[in-house]
Amino acid sequence: MRLDPKTDLTLTRTIDAPRAVIWECWTTPEHIKNFFVPKPHRVDACEIDLRVGGRFNMTMDVDGKKIDSEGVYLEIVDGERLVFTDTYSEGWKPAVDPFMTAIIEFADNGDGGTTYTATARHRSPEARQSHEDMGFHDGWGIVATQLEEYARSLE
Amino acid sequence: MRLDPKTDLTLTRTIDAPRAVIWECWTTPEHIKNFFVPKPHRVDACEIDLRVGGRFNMTMDVDGKKIDSEGVYLEIVDGERLVFTDTYSEGWKPAVDPFMTAIIEFADNGDGGTTYTATARHRSPEARQSHEDMGFHDGWGIVATQLEEYARSLE
Repeated sequence: MRLDPKTDLTLTRTIDAPRAVIWECWTTPEHIKNFFVPKPHRVDACEIDLRVGGRFNMTMDVDGKKIDSEGVYLEIVDGERLVFTDTYSEGWKPAVDPFMTAIIEFADNGDGGTTYTATARHRSPEARQSHEDMGFHDGWGIVATQLEEYARSLE
Repeated sequence: MRLDPKTDLTLTRTIDAPRAVIWECWTTPEHIKNFFVPKPHRVDACEIDLRVGGRFNMTMDVDGKKIDSEGVYLEIVDGERLVFTDTYSEGWKPAVDPFMTAIIEFADNGDGGTTYTATARHRSPEARQSHEDMGFHDGWGIVATQLEEYARSLE
């Protein structure tokens, strides 16, 4: 994929857990709750219908405030690539003001671990900047660390 | 699919040509050029990569003005359902200001013909209204008539 530095943000990490486990973590509601938002924020509810156009909905608790998020999967390459967005809710209903499209990529690192790349694509340079200012790099980095810890606890 | 009358526009027509032919017309650049815009406007170029996330790009000539449009397919159910949008270009690059998401449905009408339903979903009631004011019903109706004439010429 060709990135656009004006509108995209991306983060690559090596995770010391097998690709199949990381994929399972990313596609199972019970697992998602354990790493998807930086603690002490948390995921209270998560619904996944893992097919193109299927729902990826969530209720998060951020400093005691409930935040509902609705999204869909755009592309699913088993074990390798997951694309989802809040641009649509189920049934291809367009959102008024979508935030981002996320592309999560998983590759074997040749050492039993996983090269994990999380990319957020935005509609405009302003949206990208706003996401960076919100703490994209720290936030998604913490999520990657939480994911590694949780995935290793499953082994 | 549950429609939302506040943001969706839809049109259903019976077309006197087999579903397989209508599907072929909608998914082949050389066919698309013959019906996709109300004449005398025309399609000068069309590129189709018929897979989820694949491009559906077009150059149109409207009153001598060249209009480029980039889009992707979101869902493809062979012979039955085609979902595309200008919300993304290839690679899941979000558009700044997308116009609509189109859902085209094809069903056998039991009499050798096709029940053809074209739905446009919009981000807001204002976008829906603007599309209606631009002449959604007349325009998409003319396209359906052109499609029927062209499909019958292929038989």
